[in-house]
Amino acid sequence: MSSSTNLILVAHGSRREASNDEVRRLTQQVAAGSHHQHVGCGFLELADPDIPTAIAQEIDRGATRILILPYFLSAGRHVTEDIPAILEKARQLHPDTHIQQLPYVGQQDGMIELLRSAAEKPQVQ
Amino acid sequence: MSSSTNLILVAHGSRREASNDEVRRLTQQVAAGSHHQHVGCGFLELADPDIPTAIAQEIDRGATRILILPYFLSAGRHVTEDIPAILEKARQLHPDTHIQQLPYVGQQDGMIELLRSAAEKPQVQ
Repeated sequence: MSSSTNLILVAHGSRREASNDEVRRLTQQVAAGSHHQHVGCGFLELADPDIPTAIAQEIDRGATRILILPYFLSAGRHVTEDIPAILEKARQLHPDTHIQQLPYVGQQDGMIELLRSAAEKPQVQ
Repeated sequence: MSSSTNLILVAHGSRREASNDEVRRLTQQVAAGSHHQHVGCGFLELADPDIPTAIAQEIDRGATRILILPYFLSAGRHVTEDIPAILEKARQLHPDTHIQQLPYVGQQDGMIELLRSAAEKPQVQ
């Protein structure tokens, strides 16, 4: 049996569909250079697919391990309570799949460098 | 007269003070390796300083140019309307200071690499 790790970018979801499309487009861009077999996205609310559906889709694609990357800037209730609760239910539903929540985007070491770099660019102009 | 460009990281602000402290800590980390004379932060609502105060503080520090970096993941109303309106008022109040809004964090090229890198790390473990 082969092992496959897939990635799901989890965003809040917005009533503004352009914001959801931004997340979907970003997901495709991340996928293009990723080592993961598949990169998908899921939304906590207001947009499709929701997180349980996104997880089921990755399992259908053959994932044995799923990494959940919260596309959030701070450790509010969504990151610390809502997403973990959804993942716990998903683990019960899919006991053979390893589902792991990664640190949220604002907590990633790379954020400091991203901000510095964003602020240096206009200096060059 | 010397010229100085200062940077302000602008976040939404939260009722959860730990989230505001996260932004303040990140600001200090960005400042530590930045070429800018000073890096500060400002909040759209719910936390201090607000954006007009943060701008006045940088001018007091000698800024002749201020870069505003929105710490937001999507181009919602806050990024496209609220922050630009606040900056327009600040420009009228401080006509000798060049105040420039940078692309928001979710729009930065570095975001794709940050997400890929965040998802690769646990593979190494």
